[in-house]
Amino acid sequence: MKKLKALKVGVVGATGMVGKSFMETLEQRKFPVAELRPFASESSLGKMISLQGRSYACQVLKPGCFEGLDLVFFSSGDDISRDWAPQAVKAGAWAVDNSNAWRMESGISLVVPEVNGDLLKNQNQPQIIANPNCTTMQLVVALNPLQKKFGLEAVRVASYQAVSGAGQPGHDELMDQVRDFDKNPNPTPKAFAHPILFNAIPEIGSFNDLGYTSEEMKVMSETKKILRTPDLRVSAFTVRVPVLNSHAEAVWVTLKHETTREDVIAALQAGEGLVTEADPRKYPTQRQVSGQDPVYVGRIHQDISEPRTWMMWVVSDNIRKGAALNGIQIAEQIEAFWL
Amino acid sequence: MKKLKALKVGVVGATGMVGKSFMETLEQRKFPVAELRPFASESSLGKMISLQGRSYACQVLKPGCFEGLDLVFFSSGDDISRDWAPQAVKAGAWAVDNSNAWRMESGISLVVPEVNGDLLKNQNQPQIIANPNCTTMQLVVALNPLQKKFGLEAVRVASYQAVSGAGQPGHDELMDQVRDFDKNPNPTPKAFAHPILFNAIPEIGSFNDLGYTSEEMKVMSETKKILRTPDLRVSAFTVRVPVLNSHAEAVWVTLKHETTREDVIAALQAGEGLVTEADPRKYPTQRQVSGQDPVYVGRIHQDISEPRTWMMWVVSDNIRKGAALNGIQIAEQIEAFWL
Repeated sequence: MKKLKALKVGVVGATGMVGKSFMETLEQRKFPVAELRPFASESSLGKMISLQGRSYACQVLKPGCFEGLDLVFFSSGDDISRDWAPQAVKAGAWAVDNSNAWRMESGISLVVPEVNGDLLKNQNQPQIIANPNCTTMQLVVALNPLQKKFGLEAVRVASYQAVSGAGQPGHDELMDQVRDFDKNPNPTPKAFAHPILFNAIPEIGSFNDLGYTSEEMKVMSETKKILRTPDLRVSAFTVRVPVLNSHAEAVWVTLKHETTREDVIAALQAGEGLVTEADPRKYPTQRQVSGQDPVYVGRIHQDISEPRTWMMWVVSDNIRKGAALNGIQIAEQIEAFWL
Repeated sequence: MKKLKALKVGVVGATGMVGKSFMETLEQRKFPVAELRPFASESSLGKMISLQGRSYACQVLKPGCFEGLDLVFFSSGDDISRDWAPQAVKAGAWAVDNSNAWRMESGISLVVPEVNGDLLKNQNQPQIIANPNCTTMQLVVALNPLQKKFGLEAVRVASYQAVSGAGQPGHDELMDQVRDFDKNPNPTPKAFAHPILFNAIPEIGSFNDLGYTSEEMKVMSETKKILRTPDLRVSAFTVRVPVLNSHAEAVWVTLKHETTREDVIAALQAGEGLVTEADPRKYPTQRQVSGQDPVYVGRIHQDISEPRTWMMWVVSDNIRKGAALNGIQIAEQIEAFWL
């Protein structure tokens, strides 16, 4: 049986929420790490990061910092990824990038292993591999088996997104608003445009001239790229809700062919990385799936207004499968890393 | 100028959230009340309710209790309305019913004054008038001007519904979970199927065999009845979120004719009871609209995947316009009440 080589791994953004989840997930999956090189901002310089019984000091990015590494995971914002991911590749490392910087570049693979992991086959040359947006991630894992079995015509999604999608500042802002509620019921927002406690905010990212947010544009363009369905009609309405972790999505998916509920359920149940709750009375919730690897789907039912359209509720941990885990799954699938 | 008569008004469910909002709204609108007869359960017997400088003792429902009243507002659950609304009519009072008991009965008017208030014209005989579900209410106020101007082909709505929709117990459960979070981060739910703090629950009401909830069925059937569009395709996905008050809705509306953003905005701006935010970068939030009368709509933009479809964010106070205020507006429009 082939065995994953022990790798020298860099993590850019090691002290952020996704960085921390990346370490945790490496640990849980017993991913063989020969050396960890954690990168963070100046303020974390020298901070120790523990992994698999060893400790590693945080470094700052500087020329030559990736020398000798096999893989660098980037989770530190678009600008850093745009500048530094090519440096990692030049140094001979694979760059798995969790930012938006490279996802839609032609020639860059945007990968969810369960969906289009085949893109990593026969690739032995270090390169940038992009990790999709977390909201896209769980959506395509649920759409993939339906696309394969029935073909997709249109997808509409309204999201219920956790504050952890805005990183530690988002998480802390909601927690502070909860703890201070009696003293300060109308807090001044910082991480979000409005108080997030007891509110839903239909603004994630920045607005474009079409009236969409950047988050919505990502979901629409990335979904088509990953599913390799450039003509698929995708429409997203993304909303931040006062949930600490995991994103939920109300999805309408119009299939190319009419089918039965049994066949839709069977297709979803065969979907990779997907846990399907067939009983429409049960359904996953964001609290339940936090800390779990799979994407969960429930409330699967036919749209009574349109027979080829099916409705479902898709929930997943946006930090784990939505970011860190997917990066590790990509690393696990890169053939060059196997003995 | 005609003047509204001073009326003798009964309120069934006077101590509930909607009942309280009903009193508040009577007060604010200076609705002329000659006598108030508040009804509540045994446990509130004798409790005093203040209105317009006078106090009234809570009574329990009993035969003859509606004698002499002009109007009875019901907000106490389906069973009580089914049994007692006909008694009010027999006693010579108009019954404005906020429950689900009568809404879809043929021959019963289901009224949102801004949309189909004409149904109240030339009706001088006391009868049951149904108040729609709160989620339907704000949706039809926003759809009405689009239906009139362009015709509607299909509507899809995903909701973000406040806990106040589940009454005082729903409100208290979220508040308790907020205040106890540090001591009890995983509370046992009572009013909802799961902890509502930091969660979104796609279950409002009970499930039917189609996989829809009763809340979703209400939105779909009531919308068609109020807009008088039996062939309209409506599909609803209703979700409870940890928001204290006001419902929000992500709406996709497909018009019969292609049009421009300017014309859609102009139609909405002319809509009765509707406040339209034309700047897509601004939008109403649940916190902002709580305590306000109108329905608010923002984030109005064309679906880039389908030119006849428009997306919008509709927000309104579910207790106020969604229940109490609409009941009072119905009372204000009943012609028999004018001198």
